[in-house]
Amino acid sequence: MDSIKHIGLIGLGIMGKPMGLNLLKAGFSLGVYARHPETAQTLVTAGATFYDSVARLAAEVDVLITMVSDTPDVEAILLGKDGVITQGKAGLLVIDMSTISPVATQKIAADLAKQGIRFLDAPVSGGEAGAIAGTLTIMVGGKTEDFEQALPVLAAMGKTITHIGEHGAGQMVKACNNLIIAQTVVAISEAFEMAKMAGVDLDKARTALMGGFANSKAMEVHAKRIIDNQYTPGFKAKLHHKDLQIVAKTLNAYELNLPASQYVIQAMRQLVEQGDGELDSAAVAKIVQQTAHPKS
Amino acid sequence: MDSIKHIGLIGLGIMGKPMGLNLLKAGFSLGVYARHPETAQTLVTAGATFYDSVARLAAEVDVLITMVSDTPDVEAILLGKDGVITQGKAGLLVIDMSTISPVATQKIAADLAKQGIRFLDAPVSGGEAGAIAGTLTIMVGGKTEDFEQALPVLAAMGKTITHIGEHGAGQMVKACNNLIIAQTVVAISEAFEMAKMAGVDLDKARTALMGGFANSKAMEVHAKRIIDNQYTPGFKAKLHHKDLQIVAKTLNAYELNLPASQYVIQAMRQLVEQGDGELDSAAVAKIVQQTAHPKS
Repeated sequence: MDSIKHIGLIGLGIMGKPMGLNLLKAGFSLGVYARHPETAQTLVTAGATFYDSVARLAAEVDVLITMVSDTPDVEAILLGKDGVITQGKAGLLVIDMSTISPVATQKIAADLAKQGIRFLDAPVSGGEAGAIAGTLTIMVGGKTEDFEQALPVLAAMGKTITHIGEHGAGQMVKACNNLIIAQTVVAISEAFEMAKMAGVDLDKARTALMGGFANSKAMEVHAKRIIDNQYTPGFKAKLHHKDLQIVAKTLNAYELNLPASQYVIQAMRQLVEQGDGELDSAAVAKIVQQTAHPKS
Repeated sequence: MDSIKHIGLIGLGIMGKPMGLNLLKAGFSLGVYARHPETAQTLVTAGATFYDSVARLAAEVDVLITMVSDTPDVEAILLGKDGVITQGKAGLLVIDMSTISPVATQKIAADLAKQGIRFLDAPVSGGEAGAIAGTLTIMVGGKTEDFEQALPVLAAMGKTITHIGEHGAGQMVKACNNLIIAQTVVAISEAFEMAKMAGVDLDKARTALMGGFANSKAMEVHAKRIIDNQYTPGFKAKLHHKDLQIVAKTLNAYELNLPASQYVIQAMRQLVEQGDGELDSAAVAKIVQQTAHPKS
């Protein structure tokens, strides 16, 4: 299989722009598309070529990366009537690095395969800082040979790059990540509500808990936010809510009954619905606090 | 205040015995009581003095440590009709290192105070290995001056020793510890049930998750047990169940509504009721797995 030279990138936002700069820095030829050409300015100045349609970009590259907001955006770009599926040459490798539904991902991969277009799901964690530094964690689903060919491209943007399994497996692990974090924050918040009842100094409690089996990244980072009632983001609640809605739809598609997960999905929705979507998602502790005292 | 020389110890089980040996090693004079004198043999051989009643032991020591199974045992020893409350001299310092109810602890402390007997709750984590090595984590509730006087005694048995707050605060943090661990295990188990639906290699998923914000001690230790379906204890489910029943009673006493906590308390109970109490408590994943597929 030929090595990759020409890469296309669609989605030039907070994440996509620094990822594109890292691809240029690694020596790839980069073509970009954006609905609003001015958002491509930084990348064009750095050496990227601007394309005025998805179709034209897809026709000319070896690898096409999408980094957009949600499932319908990815579906429109890849499966839409002027999308990649109609214009991508056979053998094109599409890498979707957005965070979208694992179930929709499996269908996208199958539809593209019918046209001879290859697909990897490769969602990331690490945020804007990781995108700029090129140290993203990348979780990949798809065929082993496609993963291996994509590795030099992914290595330009990330550090810990793991091939997890079949199509959708990367998105599934991203969904697990978002779900486990939210539940750990709820667990800590609920325990703190109980602790407050007995004159416990929560800062000291956190220090003691960090020394044992209750420790977690969430205890290190989010518990401090909860104790200080200080929710400057970080990762906004409205984005965590969006990600948990992907989980909700996944549970629905597979007819899974996961009570603790369902509770935290609902709590995060309640937080956003009461107008706190711009806070850090650890503010789900506010919902725990409101729920804790039914008689007051 | 005089420094402590004579220590009494009641509860010579898996934890109490090595803790007693460490007190002797640190140079304290140790008196022990046990309903069955043969359980005191190792400690007596190592230099401890055997007493045939709680009352006689309480009358002669500066500090009395209890390390027994559950709330009623501690209440019987301390508040019973031939217990410490009737025989302990004024100024005696009682240190309860058992894991018992924070609410009952507050009452015990108040009742003893009426007789001029001082009290600290000082539950531990770290298990048998930590007790033998003298590296227990000790979470302490009670008055600052009593904590400070007790420090040399506690330091003979533990490493991370934190004064958390008022009477009951130590037990409360121990309850938080047990609750957060159980919830984190349930969060991981539920996420894994979802992940299994998309051809995810759970070992690889765990590695990827450990690299990000979903990481925890439970992910490091318990997730492996869940993936391998291998529940050799470790910390037995029946003991975690006992500790979560303390949480349940505490929530009840304070009229707290903590839905995620209540779910995990019920799941651990279900595990023990189906006969799996001897397994490691991470086996609560089995309840998650049974619950996940209501239509199968």
